[in-house]
Amino acid sequence: GPGAMGRAMGLAGLLLGLVLVPAVLLSTGLRHGAPRAEAGPAPADWELAADAVPGGSLWPLPQALRTGPRRLQLAPGRFQLVHGARSSAGAGCSLLQDAFRRYYEYMFGHSRRRRWGRRPLGAPALPELSELQVVIEAADPGCDSYPHLGSSEAYHLTVTEPAAILKAYEVWGALRGLETFSQLVHEDDYGSFLVNESEINDFPRFAHRGILLDSSRHYLPLKTILTNLDAMAFNKFNVFHWHIVDDQSFPYQSVYFPELSDKGAYSCNLIYTPADVRLVIEYARSRGIRVIPEFDTPGHTQSWGKGQKGLLTPCYSGKQPTGSFGPVNPAWNTTYDFMTKFFKEISSVFPDAYIHLGGDEVDFSCWKSNPEVKEFMKKQGFGIDYAKLESYYIQKILDIVSSYNKGQVVWQEVFDHKAQLKPDTVVQVWKANYYANELSSVTGAGFSAVLAAPWYLDYISYGQDWKKYYSVEPLNFPGSEEQKKLLIGGEACLWGEFVDATNLTPRLWPRASAVGERLWSSRNVTNLEDAYKRLTSHRCRML
Amino acid sequence: GPGAMGRAMGLAGLLLGLVLVPAVLLSTGLRHGAPRAEAGPAPADWELAADAVPGGSLWPLPQALRTGPRRLQLAPGRFQLVHGARSSAGAGCSLLQDAFRRYYEYMFGHSRRRRWGRRPLGAPALPELSELQVVIEAADPGCDSYPHLGSSEAYHLTVTEPAAILKAYEVWGALRGLETFSQLVHEDDYGSFLVNESEINDFPRFAHRGILLDSSRHYLPLKTILTNLDAMAFNKFNVFHWHIVDDQSFPYQSVYFPELSDKGAYSCNLIYTPADVRLVIEYARSRGIRVIPEFDTPGHTQSWGKGQKGLLTPCYSGKQPTGSFGPVNPAWNTTYDFMTKFFKEISSVFPDAYIHLGGDEVDFSCWKSNPEVKEFMKKQGFGIDYAKLESYYIQKILDIVSSYNKGQVVWQEVFDHKAQLKPDTVVQVWKANYYANELSSVTGAGFSAVLAAPWYLDYISYGQDWKKYYSVEPLNFPGSEEQKKLLIGGEACLWGEFVDATNLTPRLWPRASAVGERLWSSRNVTNLEDAYKRLTSHRCRML
Repeated sequence: GPGAMGRAMGLAGLLLGLVLVPAVLLSTGLRHGAPRAEAGPAPADWELAADAVPGGSLWPLPQALRTGPRRLQLAPGRFQLVHGARSSAGAGCSLLQDAFRRYYEYMFGHSRRRRWGRRPLGAPALPELSELQVVIEAADPGCDSYPHLGSSEAYHLTVTEPAAILKAYEVWGALRGLETFSQLVHEDDYGSFLVNESEINDFPRFAHRGILLDSSRHYLPLKTILTNLDAMAFNKFNVFHWHIVDDQSFPYQSVYFPELSDKGAYSCNLIYTPADVRLVIEYARSRGIRVIPEFDTPGHTQSWGKGQKGLLTPCYSGKQPTGSFGPVNPAWNTTYDFMTKFFKEISSVFPDAYIHLGGDEVDFSCWKSNPEVKEFMKKQGFGIDYAKLESYYIQKILDIVSSYNKGQVVWQEVFDHKAQLKPDTVVQVWKANYYANELSSVTGAGFSAVLAAPWYLDYISYGQDWKKYYSVEPLNFPGSEEQKKLLIGGEACLWGEFVDATNLTPRLWPRASAVGERLWSSRNVTNLEDAYKRLTSHRCRML
Repeated sequence: GPGAMGRAMGLAGLLLGLVLVPAVLLSTGLRHGAPRAEAGPAPADWELAADAVPGGSLWPLPQALRTGPRRLQLAPGRFQLVHGARSSAGAGCSLLQDAFRRYYEYMFGHSRRRRWGRRPLGAPALPELSELQVVIEAADPGCDSYPHLGSSEAYHLTVTEPAAILKAYEVWGALRGLETFSQLVHEDDYGSFLVNESEINDFPRFAHRGILLDSSRHYLPLKTILTNLDAMAFNKFNVFHWHIVDDQSFPYQSVYFPELSDKGAYSCNLIYTPADVRLVIEYARSRGIRVIPEFDTPGHTQSWGKGQKGLLTPCYSGKQPTGSFGPVNPAWNTTYDFMTKFFKEISSVFPDAYIHLGGDEVDFSCWKSNPEVKEFMKKQGFGIDYAKLESYYIQKILDIVSSYNKGQVVWQEVFDHKAQLKPDTVVQVWKANYYANELSSVTGAGFSAVLAAPWYLDYISYGQDWKKYYSVEPLNFPGSEEQKKLLIGGEACLWGEFVDATNLTPRLWPRASAVGERLWSSRNVTNLEDAYKRLTSHRCRML
């Protein structure tokens, strides 16, 4: 059609792309991933078959993978996912039991045929793969715990007749390995389920691999959030950064302060009850995903003011209040009383070791107009430097949250404005300009950093922008080896101005998959053509 | 959140916007719309109420509308859509019977309460609106016919106690009026269905208001196409331009040439059978929508070549065929034999008076390489002007299709390259640069034109691009009044490179609604703020 000549076929293509994955095999310990080792040559008896379909659709690409030419067949009626004899986890590990059920469905559920597929006449019978044995090696497998920044997600998978074996130190690695195993299994044109003999050794390059969703600009139904958690698991993401409230609405239903959502949500239906929040956290946990809630202050808080009178700063025009409100009022003690109680609740509702405290984009104009705030500035000796007032406020909030034994994530302004941060504070870098320099400064000061700047996926444009996201190299910033280690990961952010339940999933996926592979796979996995083919298959599978 | 300060709330907002519509009333004949008349003042007894909700959510805005402050209540259990006593249509008119059922569902179906809503205590009882009487005035109401370019879509609607009356010359106007009536009815917080007393006189500004979908770059499931036809009806669009085949795939299952889809479709499932095509045409007809199929030649035909050997031009490198193929081969008689038979089928399968013959973006390089084509050029005396060869080909196709008594739509290149067109040919203007000049040339030569250039909705960008589409004034091109009358309408085009079933609906709607109002409503309906509020409500209603 007009205007179409020469355009590339879109990523939204529905045809499967097949590709050959370079066969490399590393020998590494499982516990905490592995040092970057040399790729060894493939043994002669594990040749690379040109029709090695499964390796060609893996996403994100494992750290080390070899596939043999020999294909095994899975009989849906007989194949089992089971605990290995030496595993520290067993039938009591409901996290793994649920995962077994889930991945069985992913592999075979869409097929009505619960039997051997019909092979073409005259085709040689294939040997059968009868089960996948999952072995957890740690004394405490972690079945009832929450994933955290230091969790091990490494796994080792061998697929050989008669049984495949998936070894992991903790359940989190097993979840990642189950995803990989399910990606290896494919259905051929005759309805047979096949897998090539393979060996995979895998671990994440970065420990923090997040997706930010914004449920304030538009309310996101629970179903949309859960679907997104599924998609995250398909892409080995492990952090759901829940930007749950903002200026536009306050959908979080607080137990201590129910008026915040009663008055600050778009409507009384468009809220997250305590039961909703628990469901999201558990759904995420069972997929190895942390939930880091963000309660952004002192800016981005217009909706807080509706249910909590006396929290926001009254703006003035000369000596008269205008009736408008600015950021949280840092001059009043009642503010800190409220925040102490509020963050006590948040600290107990959300089990993750970190809370995101926001701290971005504070507009000083209302503070500057308010006589009490001006008086407070004078008393504190801040002169006219409102960044000092902002830091004063943030400091108090950081102290409050620290007292509940929670670690903190903050947007970069908090660091830029020189607040005194606890050593374990994580600084999230979001400003697109000079983000490499910012990473350099943050890590240079000894803080951990999470990179979001190049991955604002709410910004859309025509064409295959996933390539842009894919081509980012997070460690391309000036700094020592020590500094590089402080970059713990990144996040793809989908702000909610133009996103709601109607378009979230197709807008975010598979674009965010590009970020997923960048954060999981080896640094040298950068071939766009190869990625295109695998990503096309991966999208089909996700659908 | 970061980067969000100062961004406008997105159009995807889920809150209803309310707005007051200027009350004007024109007195016009129904048959063919009306000349542009002066707006009269509202009578004193029909004041404009500030809470006149219904007028505030109409989309596209009627040509003339006044609403009174008096509200009537509808009882879902009693309210009826009926044929008026003087209507030429009756219970045998299944098109209207279906529409009655459909609009009853739209108005009341989502509500579980099939009874009077609970009004607040002490609220005065409202008078009841018991029915909507639909009166078709033409001797032949058109129940069993197909809509066409000259169909009347005008209607006149009065909503007063005890019955509303919808008058239209043909059923097509009644369909538009039913949509408007359903938009007037709204449910209040107490579950009551209310409508303000109103009078509306309405007709389209342009006769051709189209949506182009592309089912070749990505196959579109039938359900997606039908959903789009519903959305089109909600926005008073009346042409579905079905760009059904292209280079990438040939999903149209031909009766005469089944191999075209057997070999040219993405797969044997991803096709439109004759029954599918009939369903689309009938679903469209019952919503007053024409289906204009596009079979684009001689370019954009790679997929045709898979099932029809000897149709495309073999490309050469020197004296050797390369194995690649170019556009349809214009030098062989067999080409025209094929096209004669093929378009005979198309002319009979698709009832619309027009077929779109494409003719865009023909790449001459393959023709230039082919010795037989070069020989043919010489014989015809075309020299090295391959545009002449293109016109020669197109001419033959136009003649073939004319012989089946079908009108023709072509992309602008066919006109630009000076093919001899039948006087009733419609030229579709798609090139973004200088489209006003192109409209001027096309209409100056006496041809009808359809404008698509500013409405390529497959191009996306961040933010509220609907404003850009909305702000286009189609008649802003140099030309006489006669020329302006030759611009018969426009189309919003959603090419399929990055569109499939997963994202089509939220990508197209409500962005295409902006085009819908531009093509239906009066030229002076241009207020973006007012449009924003109505469009926000309209989106809610569509969802």
